Amino acid sequence: MAKSPEEPPLTMAQIAAVAGVSVATVSKVINQRTDVAPTTRERVERVMAERGYMLNKAARSLRKGNSGQIDFLVGQELNSYYAFEILRGVEEALLPTEVRMVLASTHALREREQQWRQRLSEGAIDGAVLVLADKRSLYLQELTRRGIPFVVVDPFGELGPEDLSVSATNWSGGKLATAYLLSLGHRRIAALMGLPDHPCTQDRIAGYRHALQEAGVPVDPALIHFANFHAEQAYQEMMQILALPEMPTAIFVGSDEQCLGVYRALFERGIAVPGAMSVIGFDNMPYAEWVTPALTTIHQPLLEMGRVATKLLLRLIAGEPVESVRIELATPLIKRASCAPPQGNLISNPASLP
Amino acid sequence: MAKSPEEPPLTMAQIAAVAGVSVATVSKVINQRTDVAPTTRERVERVMAERGYMLNKAARSLRKGNSGQIDFLVGQELNSYYAFEILRGVEEALLPTEVRMVLASTHALREREQQWRQRLSEGAIDGAVLVLADKRSLYLQELTRRGIPFVVVDPFGELGPEDLSVSATNWSGGKLATAYLLSLGHRRIAALMGLPDHPCTQDRIAGYRHALQEAGVPVDPALIHFANFHAEQAYQEMMQILALPEMPTAIFVGSDEQCLGVYRALFERGIAVPGAMSVIGFDNMPYAEWVTPALTTIHQPLLEMGRVATKLLLRLIAGEPVESVRIELATPLIKRASCAPPQGNLISNPASLP
Repeated sequence: MAKSPEEPPLTMAQIAAVAGVSVATVSKVINQRTDVAPTTRERVERVMAERGYMLNKAARSLRKGNSGQIDFLVGQELNSYYAFEILRGVEEALLPTEVRMVLASTHALREREQQWRQRLSEGAIDGAVLVLADKRSLYLQELTRRGIPFVVVDPFGELGPEDLSVSATNWSGGKLATAYLLSLGHRRIAALMGLPDHPCTQDRIAGYRHALQEAGVPVDPALIHFANFHAEQAYQEMMQILALPEMPTAIFVGSDEQCLGVYRALFERGIAVPGAMSVIGFDNMPYAEWVTPALTTIHQPLLEMGRVATKLLLRLIAGEPVESVRIELATPLIKRASCAPPQGNLISNPASLP
Repeated sequence: MAKSPEEPPLTMAQIAAVAGVSVATVSKVINQRTDVAPTTRERVERVMAERGYMLNKAARSLRKGNSGQIDFLVGQELNSYYAFEILRGVEEALLPTEVRMVLASTHALREREQQWRQRLSEGAIDGAVLVLADKRSLYLQELTRRGIPFVVVDPFGELGPEDLSVSATNWSGGKLATAYLLSLGHRRIAALMGLPDHPCTQDRIAGYRHALQEAGVPVDPALIHFANFHAEQAYQEMMQILALPEMPTAIFVGSDEQCLGVYRALFERGIAVPGAMSVIGFDNMPYAEWVTPALTTIHQPLLEMGRVATKLLLRLIAGEPVESVRIELATPLIKRASCAPPQGNLISNPASLP
């Protein structure tokens, strides 16, 4: 099919769709990168040639996206500050651009999914930031099928080999939290993690195990518990941990919000933090600094994750080269007041007595 | 100008713009409401007649908005859970519709404002939800000028007489909080409010004064303090209050986030909550239930405010009648564990000792 004068230039997404490859691959071919299989390169170049493009001009003549909008798609309810922090990062990255973000999550509603597909087919968006998606996600599958660029923040599972993702160094974060508690002298360290099927949970608990093993401390399965990422279930689960015959002296918790439930359980049982129990969280939510005692935690750079993902997406849309496929952002330790060396005995917190 | 067959039907917004009235007024004329000045009605009817509309068919023939998008515009940074809760409400109200929300705040950046005006002129949005806007707001002025429907959530000041708004019953909330503390036996009740130029602050403090006066308790100006709505400044201000020659036994605080700072100050000074100081907040943020002690607070229905505003907006866009211009949603008292009757003496909280 020769390019007729009336036909508008193809977008990268369209070339990718026609050639049956990802947008990242088209970008690589255009930018003459060497890490593309020869047969793939040939196929992409053929599609571009058929539309009358000279390879060296392609990068400039491709449309840089034309709707001026990207979708923000969360693979669950928009009901946690977790998603809000990522959203703020996306908003920040878009600030100096002409691109605007549309909240487009379909919440598994059939009608809304149909409307969303309709929007894609109308070219209503240039790309998408996906939160908590994986290969099985409707979003990811549809965007891939249509060759619309996307970046996944905090992937929920496996992605396609060329799909871009941005997440936190969850393994390192888990190791760092545990190593810090070990360095204070703790040996009996519990882990109260988020949902066990979430990759971030698996990575954090693997980091926890690694740190214990490195220190020669046996991993006690009775000390490893899971709950959703919210306060209520964490409270319940913490009560279980406090009912163990031999209590831990410290606990690594899967989210700051869970720490609110852990604090409540400890308060009700009269167990002082950090005197009788050290608590370390994960996320560094804005309120972590202001709970009492101020929460020591692992900073998960949610805002930065949203920002970095969006910048990557804008480059994909513009047809610029993207170096990394998987990006992990650092998770530093934020020391506050909820961790201390272990004490010999439990000390009742008088504030909790009636 | 007679309507030619090629011309698409005017939107309500366009009729409003041509007639120089608000969309609400056009809606009233179409729905044959009586509360429209005769000269105004005449002008609107003339515009519609010039475009070949029969009045009784107008409501159906008007386009129901065609971009399928509304803007969400916050008159400040998107940096607080306050805005996030409202946004969640907007998202919820849009769920069963085909309309999507665009985050379009311009953050007072000239270039972005220009882009936003451009989007308006291109008909890119059918309407807007404005948070913390007033008559001086660029958003409000531009939308009015172009006759694009909007609803203001939590107005920051005066609005045009026909502009729709949704807010909380701040005066009643302030009165309720204060009356509750009075009912527990408190007489020396401080108020640590948000920014003094914010209408919600003025309403809440007026409710506080009213409750005190009704109970025959003199208002002591030394007990009324202001800060921004965040924890840090509230902490500083609370330290000032605790340095007063005669301390209060209870405090009404302008936001739950401020309460985090108040709790910190009290904890550092060894003042037990609620034993030596009762604390009541405002907002009922998700974490209020989980701080220790669980925070008694006035529920500000932020999510509902976003939801109600969006439903109103959708009716405006569809040309349906809207009854109320100012809507205030109730602010009930949520009793938890941070308020109690006053005690004779201050009791030091041993947990705060080194």
